Formats: sequence, C-alpha cells, structure tokens
Amino acid sequence: MNFLRNAWYCAGWAADLGAEPITRTYLNEPVLLYRMRDGRAVAIGERCPHRFAPLHKGKLRDDCIECPYHGLRFDSSGACVHNPHGDGSIPKAAKVKAYPLAERHGALWIWMGDSALADESTIVDAHEIEKRAGWDVVQGQLNVKGNYELLADNLLDLSHVPFLHPFLSFDGPPPPGFSFHSDLKQEGDTVYAMNLLVNTPISPLYKLLWENPPEVGEMRAHMRWDAPSTLLLDTGMTSVGGPQSDGPSLPTAHFLTPETETSTHYFWAQARDHKVGDEPLSELLAKGVNDAFQNEDEPMIEDCQKLMGTTDLMSLKPVLLPTDAPAIRARRVLASLREKERQAAARPGG
Amino acid sequence: MNFLRNAWYCAGWAADLGAEPITRTYLNEPVLLYRMRDGRAVAIGERCPHRFAPLHKGKLRDDCIECPYHGLRFDSSGACVHNPHGDGSIPKAAKVKAYPLAERHGALWIWMGDSALADESTIVDAHEIEKRAGWDVVQGQLNVKGNYELLADNLLDLSHVPFLHPFLSFDGPPPPGFSFHSDLKQEGDTVYAMNLLVNTPISPLYKLLWENPPEVGEMRAHMRWDAPSTLLLDTGMTSVGGPQSDGPSLPTAHFLTPETETSTHYFWAQARDHKVGDEPLSELLAKGVNDAFQNEDEPMIEDCQKLMGTTDLMSLKPVLLPTDAPAIRARRVLASLREKERQAAARPGG
Amino acid sequence: MNFLRNAWYCAGWAADLGAEPITRTYLNEPVLLYRMRDGRAVAIGERCPHRFAPLHKGKLRDDCIECPYHGLRFDSSGACVHNPHGDGSIPKAAKVKAYPLAERHGALWIWMGDSALADESTIVDAHEIEKRAGWDVVQGQLNVKGNYELLADNLLDLSHVPFLHPFLSFDGPPPPGFSFHSDLKQEGDTVYAMNLLVNTPISPLYKLLWENPPEVGEMRAHMRWDAPSTLLLDTGMTSVGGPQSDGPSLPTAHFLTPETETSTHYFWAQARDHKVGDEPLSELLAKGVNDAFQNEDEPMIEDCQKLMGTTDLMSLKPVLLPTDAPAIRARRVLASLREKERQAAARPGG
Repeated sequence: MNFLRNAWYCAGWAADLGAEPITRTYLNEPVLLYRMRDGRAVAIGERCPHRFAPLHKGKLRDDCIECPYHGLRFDSSGACVHNPHGDGSIPKAAKVKAYPLAERHGALWIWMGDSALADESTIVDAHEIEKRAGWDVVQGQLNVKGNYELLADNLLDLSHVPFLHPFLSFDGPPPPGFSFHSDLKQEGDTVYAMNLLVNTPISPLYKLLWENPPEVGEMRAHMRWDAPSTLLLDTGMTSVGGPQSDGPSLPTAHFLTPETETSTHYFWAQARDHKVGDEPLSELLAKGVNDAFQNEDEPMIEDCQKLMGTTDLMSLKPVLLPTDAPAIRARRVLASLREKERQAAARPGG
Repeated sequence: MNFLRNAWYCAGWAADLGAEPITRTYLNEPVLLYRMRDGRAVAIGERCPHRFAPLHKGKLRDDCIECPYHGLRFDSSGACVHNPHGDGSIPKAAKVKAYPLAERHGALWIWMGDSALADESTIVDAHEIEKRAGWDVVQGQLNVKGNYELLADNLLDLSHVPFLHPFLSFDGPPPPGFSFHSDLKQEGDTVYAMNLLVNTPISPLYKLLWENPPEVGEMRAHMRWDAPSTLLLDTGMTSVGGPQSDGPSLPTAHFLTPETETSTHYFWAQARDHKVGDEPLSELLAKGVNDAFQNEDEPMIEDCQKLMGTTDLMSLKPVLLPTDAPAIRARRVLASLREKERQAAARPGG
Repeated sequence: MNFLRNAWYCAGWAADLGAEPITRTYLNEPVLLYRMRDGRAVAIGERCPHRFAPLHKGKLRDDCIECPYHGLRFDSSGACVHNPHGDGSIPKAAKVKAYPLAERHGALWIWMGDSALADESTIVDAHEIEKRAGWDVVQGQLNVKGNYELLADNLLDLSHVPFLHPFLSFDGPPPPGFSFHSDLKQEGDTVYAMNLLVNTPISPLYKLLWENPPEVGEMRAHMRWDAPSTLLLDTGMTSVGGPQSDGPSLPTAHFLTPETETSTHYFWAQARDHKVGDEPLSELLAKGVNDAFQNEDEPMIEDCQKLMGTTDLMSLKPVLLPTDAPAIRARRVLASLREKERQAAARPGG
C-alpha cells in the first residue's frame, strides 16, 4: 500500500517542539524537527548523507544541526554548510531533504511530497481547537500500533461506542421519545458522518460541563473527514431543538499521521466553551479522552490488525454494515487520490 | 509444510474450559472456545467477519458470543444472529467457521478440516487417562516453541532419557542379568515403539508408587503413535516375568496439537493404579512430568529447532540411528496421509 | 553479502576458553570451542548431525564432546567415535565440520574456509599485544549489533573522535604551532591510516601514563588494517620530534569477527610500556576502552545501521569525505578478495 504524499499531515503539537531537536517517522521516513532561534520550526531529513548517523542526536549550532558522528552541519534548507575536516570542502551531494512545514491551529503540518505543490492554504481549517477567547483546549498524542485507516474507520463509525466505551453511553432502555439519526454526506473530497440523538439522557460527561441541564436533550456528533486522515468532530448537547449556544460544545480534532503501514501518530485536541478556566476539569477531560483511546480503542484496533494479518482491509472482503458507509466512503476518496498521484508520478516528467 | 486437516486434534482438557470464552490457535487458525448453558463445548472462528475483532473478548449472551467491537452476535453454528444497529438486518456473509468439537476421555477434540468428514468414532481411544474407579489422573499443558513433529520424535525415541533426564534413569552399571529390548511395530497407520527393560533396578519414581518392590524388576515403556500426533504411553513395572497387575501402571497421554509450524500445544495426562487418592503424591507426579518436560525436553527441542533453522527435518539430511526408526516411521505415515489429503483437495470437486 | 572465508578470524581471547565448552557463531556458522586435556583448543561444528542438538551443552569425555540429547560423541576432528545405543554402530555420515584453530598472540584464530588452505604463517603479527616483559596488557570483548565493515570504517576514520569521544579530545582552541597530518598508505593488501598531531596538548589519558610530560607533544595514531577485519593501532606520545621511547606507547588491537551480517564479535586489547604493574591503572584503562566503545561508538554504529536499513553501505551511495579514504580503500581490498574467492569457487573443481 502506498501513502498519499502530496498532502499536509499533522507533524505534532506546536507546543511540544521546544529547544531540543527531535525525530519522528512519517510515512516511513525519519524526519528531524527543530526550532531556529527565531522560533521557526524546521523539518529536514534525519539521516546524515555521509554515514547515515541520526542527526537528532547532534547539537544545534547557529540554527544548523551538527551531525553527532563526524560533525557535518546542515542548515534549515537541508544543505551541508560546514565540514570540520581537512580543507573543509563540502561535496555537492551533501544535503538532506527539506520538508515544507507550517504551524497552524496549534499544530505543525508537514508536506511529505513534492515541495513545489505545497500550498499552506490547503491545510484543513481546524480553528475550533485553537486557543481563543471563551474556549479552553486540552490536547495530547499517542503512538498506536495500528494502520491509520483502521483508526479513521474507528472514528467514522461511532456505533462502537456502546460496546467499547460503556462509560460514554447511557445505561438501561432509552427514554420515551428517544430517536437516533445518522447521515452520510460528501462535499468534494470531504466526508461527513452525521449523528444526532434526540431526547437522550444527559451523559455523565455533559453533566460535568452543563449546570442545570434539562432532563433529556439533543446530542450531535458530526465527524468530518478530510484526506489524508484529518478528522474533526463537531459534538455538543443542547435542549431538544435548541440552538448550539444552548449547551456545551466540545469540538474535537483527531489528526492521524502514518508512521509506518502498521503504526500511526495520533494527535488529538478537545476544545470546550463551558467551564472555561476550570483547570481540574481540563485535566479530567484530557485524561478521559486519553484513557478511552488508550485503554479501549487502541487495544481493539491493534487486536484487529493482528487478526487481519495485513493492513489491506478490503483484501479480506470484510462483511460491511450500513454503519460502515462513511468509513468506506472516506477509504474510496483516499484510494482515488492515491491512484491519481500514482498516475501523475508515472507520467513522463512526473 | 502443510498440516493434516481431516483429523481430530486435542483442543485442550475439558476441565480447563469454564464459563469464560477463550481463544487458542490450532494449525495457524485462531479459534474461539466456549461452553453453552447446557455445558456443551463450542468451537467457532475467533475473528469477527466484520472488522476482524477478537470474539473471545466479547460477552456470552444466550449461548451466543457478542463481538466486543460493534456488538454483532454469533451462535454456536457460527451464524450471525443479531445486528444491534440500524434496522438490524444481517448480511448473508456474516458468519464464522464452525468446527466440529467433541468431548472424550476428559479432553476436547477439534476437527480442523471438512466438517462432513468428521466422525467421532475415529477419535483415538484414550480411556486409560479418564477418571475412573481404581485410578487417579493428573494432567497439564504447555505451549512449546517447537514443531509438533519434533515433539513426537522426542517421545518416540526414549533413548534420550539417560542423557536428558538423569533423574529418571538409574546410576552406575546395570545389574547382573539386565537386558534391554526394543521393537518397532506398525498396525495400519498406528506406530508402536516398544521398550522393555528386564532385571532393571527400581527407579526412585517407582519406589514412590510401589510398596515392598522386588530388588530388580521389569519395566515396559510402549509408546503408541496415531496420526496426526496423538501419543499414548503404556508404561509400568512388574516383577520379572510377572503380570501387569503385579506392579504399578502409569499410562500416560501426550497429545500434540500444532499451534503454528514452530509452536505446539502439548497436553499431557498420567494415570496410576497405585496409591490412588494420595493427593500429595498426585501433586508430586504432576510436578515431575511437568518439570521434566519444561526444564529438560522443551529447551532441547527449542534449541534443536533454532539450530535447524527450519522445521523440515528431512531437508537437512539428518544422520539417522536405528533408535530413530519409530519416529521416522510415524513421519512417513503422516507425510503419506498429508499427501493423500493434498491430492484429494486437488481433484476436481475436491 | 558474502564473507571472505579463506582467512583467519579472531575467535576470542585464549584466556577466555577454559575447561567448559562454549559456542560462538562466526560468519553465520555456530561453532563449538573447547580445550583438550593437554590444553589444545579445538573448534568443531556446534550442531549434532543427528538431531541438531547444541553440542556445547554436552559433556567432555576423554577429549570428546558428548551430545546432550542422545549421547553421540565427537572427537576433535569432528568424527563421531561413540554411539551408546544398540550395537553401537556409527553411521558414516556422522561427523561435524572441524575448523583449523590456532593460538597466537594471546588470541584464538579460526579458519572458516577450505582447511587445505589454512596456513598459520599468514596470521597477522600482533605481538604488540602479547604479554611480554616490560609491557602490561588489558583486553576485553563486546558483541555489537552492527556489521563488521561499519566497525572497521569507524576505526579507520578517527575524525569522529572529537565528536563522539569528547573526553579523548582536548578542549578549546589548538595551541600555537599545532598541526595535524594524515596519510593513507597501502602495502599489498594492508591499508594504513596514519594520523600525526604535532604540538598537541597532553590529553588526560596520557597524563595518567606519563610522569613529567612536556607542555605539548606529538601524538601518533597509525591504524593498520588487514583483511578480513584485523586492525592494529600504533598509538603513543612523544616530545615533539622525539623518539618513540620518549613517551608512552599504547599499541591496541581491534579484532572484528562477523557473527552475522548485522552483528560482530569485537575483541580488543591494549598494551602499554609505562606504569607497568600498576593494577588500578590497568583496570581504569580497560574500563576506559570498554566504556568509550560501548557507550559511544557502539550506539552510533547501531543507529547508523538501523537508519541504513541494509548492511550494504555502498548501495546507499553515501556522500564520501576525504577522511573516508582509508575505510573505502580497505573496503575495496576486501571486496576484491571476496570476488577472487567467489570466482575460484565457481571454477570447475573450485
């Protein structure tokens, strides 16, 4: 399976990249990340072209990284700018790849394909999870031993919630008048999985956020998927038929970046407009998101992948349910984008 | 190497399958085992056909297993009988494989091949290790990182005993009149490795079992092999030339079930007709069998397999000794049965 | 990648082979090493030809090794000389390979190729690291998860020292008159990487060895490489322009023996002619060599190999610097010797 290369992938949370250079692998490529003295974030190849030493173990010198093995220095464009040995001459080929890197919405975004095609205006609009007035945000990250499309499938089919996340569901029979509505929508290459629960009890989570809630309410969980694997969940509760301002909103980002075919960087963030400034609540919510994923979703996805024995889901001819429709739609969009990229690369001059 | 599929393999000890569903892999296939409310044991595929979730992590509901990921339910025939989502319709293909499973002689027996050919009357007769009046039985199991044929070889050539199991042998020179007789016998597809020691000292093990034994005695160790890898050892001591009732009998079962090509479920049981009801002795005997295998045979078999670098013994052109004859005979019978199965499968309609 | 087989490889330090048989893998072949009662060291195949049991777990009996599984015995020529079963007849094919093994300069040397070509006079002259009057020697060994050629590269290009081994370098700017000279020399199949530092400060290491040293001195570090992977470093300090007797000499051996393509036995020894008999200093020096390699070189080489994703350095088209010249020269000599061996083996009768 190939990856879509001409696309923005989340490289991590901006706040997590400090003074120390770090390395992360995206799409099987080890990348070095560091910040220059002016704060600008840089992404270049992690592998020194001389002896293939890990550059992130080197030292930063004047905004350049010094290879820890023999001391070659590379600048933010990936060019070798210093050879400490002999007459100091620098072979022409001494350079590493430079990756377009943008900082947007509190996240770093990396472009793994052709730099000439990198257009920052195509980074997904995730302003909902930015720090801004009237909102609090918690965020985190996990490394999951599962293929990124399996993770997206999980997020696009929330019918697993009552089975995998008992504490996020309500117990007992549904109340009178309860109804559940789901819908699939596609706009261009964007896929939406819309879920609406009407006359639903207020879950323990929303009781934490909402003072004096009604007996029952309306809950929305609209997941938006954009290629390659960027998911934004518009979720919240209101009184039945009421406007969004009526109750708490909890917009949540799920950014999935393949590390390898069988492992994924999972970056998540959750904003809220209720009980802003309540630090203990922020910690509770962060722990809640993290624990649900780490203890419930992640083991299940890893188990499934192990039993699949491959990452190519469709080759196993899975028995599909109507609840799989959004996930399958997203898979088709992505497969088609990958195929277009493959054909473009195969063209003369491609 | 392929496995013989149309055969009964021991799936485990019946007493070890309780109220909780469990999973074991046989012949590379992960299988779910559980008991219905009436006590009947069931074996179906472990892998949900929807998203390949591990069914043994699900809950039993009305004799059906509920998938832990999205809640599909499968009955003991492997059919999906409940979809909790949407209109509840069930895709036709939503089913897992059902395996014929029998309970016999205190063990569970699974048929990994064509169900239509599963005939319970062909399960090996192992009544010797059943709980019955006048006999005590101890049993256990180990997972061994060795190919099942290497384990069978080990059991069919007891000439390793003095070298690998010093405590099961006698020290020093053989007593006057000592003689050793071994014989190979084949009846149909059953292979026997017969061993008889005449005028042999009473080993420490038999001193535990036999009150007032003679100075020297006769010891038999007749191993019976049936395809695919079921071994029954008729062993015991008598006075020289005496009838079996003369001294202790210790019939022992060694049921070998391939997990993968390089690992094996080893189920063993040992019955005795002396000192019945002596619980501390039962514990001692169980520990003895377990320890001898775990600390002496198992490491040796795993070492050999590592040095072989393959599980295909014959491809390495081993130097064979006369003591290998029973093991090689059993390997030939099994190879011929596998070849017959392969040819039947290749025939039109096979 | 193939290995040069017709060559002497260091099998270990002679002092480390005692009464107990041991096993080591060289060039992917597991070898059994033991000493006969007269002290002579023996190397034969580790794998019993009967059931492929690990012979080093057996017992020595009359200078023969007894297989721990079924008791076959093999003598120092690899021939099976005893079968304890049945009529004791020994199959003709029951033998293991015997390897020419020599003891020289405190080391054991093994010949992995055609025995007929093994000529002990071609063992590299490493008398400098032998125990002899006026010299002390420390030695040790490490198993490194890196290809042996990467280790040789490391030793043939000491320009990594200031970056990887800060404590072996001097701090701050070079003193007045400091100069550095390096040279590459080839004599037959022997490659020399010559390094000379003139007017260099006395490093902490040499201050330990040299009483009343001058303010600055001359330091030589001449590495000699012989195929397949035997390295001898002539290193020491003198006053500027002075004779070698002027200051401490620290001749050091680095014997690299491939275990597999990705792992290497690294045997090192360091002799000195100053402070002879100072045991605490010997311990300090041994710890120093060991720690520098284990904590600094070894992790770097393993990191590089991981990032290379192969052991075939040249296939990655590394960017080469002038400081790589000796390493590349040695690689070429070795590649040419391997190619000659390959062609000889391909010839009729080869």
